[in-house]
Amino acid sequence: MQPKLKGVTVAVIGGDARYLVLIDELIASEARVNVVGMPVTSSVKGVTLYDNLEGCLVGVQAVILPILGIDEKGLLHCVLSEQKYTMTEEIMSQLPKGTFVFTGLASFLLKQMTSRMELRLIELMSLDEVAILNAIPSAEGVVQMAMELLPVTIHGSSVIVLGFGRTGKTLARLLGAMGAKTKVVARKPADLARVTEMNLVPVAFNNMLDCLGEAEVIFNTIPARVLTEEALCRVSHDTIIIDLASDPGGTDFQAAERLGIKAVLTPSLPGRVAPKTAGRILAQPIVRLLSEKTASN
Amino acid sequence: MQPKLKGVTVAVIGGDARYLVLIDELIASEARVNVVGMPVTSSVKGVTLYDNLEGCLVGVQAVILPILGIDEKGLLHCVLSEQKYTMTEEIMSQLPKGTFVFTGLASFLLKQMTSRMELRLIELMSLDEVAILNAIPSAEGVVQMAMELLPVTIHGSSVIVLGFGRTGKTLARLLGAMGAKTKVVARKPADLARVTEMNLVPVAFNNMLDCLGEAEVIFNTIPARVLTEEALCRVSHDTIIIDLASDPGGTDFQAAERLGIKAVLTPSLPGRVAPKTAGRILAQPIVRLLSEKTASN
Repeated sequence: MQPKLKGVTVAVIGGDARYLVLIDELIASEARVNVVGMPVTSSVKGVTLYDNLEGCLVGVQAVILPILGIDEKGLLHCVLSEQKYTMTEEIMSQLPKGTFVFTGLASFLLKQMTSRMELRLIELMSLDEVAILNAIPSAEGVVQMAMELLPVTIHGSSVIVLGFGRTGKTLARLLGAMGAKTKVVARKPADLARVTEMNLVPVAFNNMLDCLGEAEVIFNTIPARVLTEEALCRVSHDTIIIDLASDPGGTDFQAAERLGIKAVLTPSLPGRVAPKTAGRILAQPIVRLLSEKTASN
Repeated sequence: MQPKLKGVTVAVIGGDARYLVLIDELIASEARVNVVGMPVTSSVKGVTLYDNLEGCLVGVQAVILPILGIDEKGLLHCVLSEQKYTMTEEIMSQLPKGTFVFTGLASFLLKQMTSRMELRLIELMSLDEVAILNAIPSAEGVVQMAMELLPVTIHGSSVIVLGFGRTGKTLARLLGAMGAKTKVVARKPADLARVTEMNLVPVAFNNMLDCLGEAEVIFNTIPARVLTEEALCRVSHDTIIIDLASDPGGTDFQAAERLGIKAVLTPSLPGRVAPKTAGRILAQPIVRLLSEKTASN
């Protein structure tokens, strides 16, 4: 990454293993980084450690909150720290108007606070440039999971991907490239056309039930209850269902258990399976937005 | 699989999880199967269980020994049984001349015994049709291993495959398809041309040392000491070396440890990562050879 952030100070508050990579990337761009709630040593040039939020926020041009941000009581989600930190309106009020506040997805409270103080809230996970790239570690993580669960190779196996959003697209492409017989269930005619163009097999959503019986693995990416009890009755007992849709997934897990079908809901994968890649993905828009702002000053 | 083996009786002696699949495939082809040294229930139609080798071999047209066959003392490699069985020349002598004896790779003793009795020894692992297909679970297993060890995705990572034999070819193709920046080190000009044709980056063996420093993962498939101490000195400390070449591999593991480079030698992967696929791969030539023989009788 180019050194674009000379003279910029960024507060990084809490976060998971991805944020350790993110801090490295900010330092590589010559930003100074104030850190609280993370196991970082102050011996790294450019890093200053704080034990309280107030000090950490002094003089910063941007604040990076954890991916899960703050909860409805202001508690920060610091998974790598035993100390608990609570963000209050008073602490936040020391930031100048227009200061960037980055998080993954914002709670209602955070949206309210930042809007009232005219701070510039960026929800990283809702940026296309992040979500598209995050689909790569998600897809690889879920393929790794399938490899662990399956007694057959991905190559030559029959798989179905439900949904053709950002994750569905990347997962279907990866499975096809690895040699799986890949069907994709989608609603939109344009998506079905794209599936055909990718040399995979398109299945219109209305015909989904007819194809479920042949699959060795069903990957669901649709965040709505699509694998209902009726649908699960069509699924073979050897089939494995891996549900990537955000919690609670799109599978009737209780019905699956009753029917003796193995179905798992994946946790958020990018930070787990490839923290370094996932950290770089987060760093990219942050460095871009801050360097654009610096350049325009 | 077509029912081609009506009237044929096959003895299956010991073996690992693959052999359970192999037995299913033989039964699906309508063979009768005599089993010893495996956890199979006699309730399966067509299967007869024995507790001794002599009984198991009566009236069979083929004997399937474990992949590792018999050792130099005649001991059978039965990993799924606590009972030990020893094959002797006397037991073997009850087989008519020309009876098929299948194993993975044969010990000197087994070669001697079968040759003296004019039995038809087939080493499955040396058949091209087996080795080419076995490269698929091997390559997937090693990619799964890389996914577990790497903090980055395979997509976008820099990888080197040393060697372009059956395993090297399949592994390089898989890595390229998954989006890794894939270099392949080979000696033969024709292999380097094939690497280019596959849209991967060819590196002549003599130039190997120059490219080792850039790799996030180095996969070795060459069964000779290629990753010497001199070579390992060029490798970065973050690089992971996965050695697939048969034991003892092609890496100076002691030098790697001294240099602080993570290097692992993989066990034989097909039976571990995809026993069902691997079992079917073994069944194919056995069923083919037996049905050809039956047809010619």
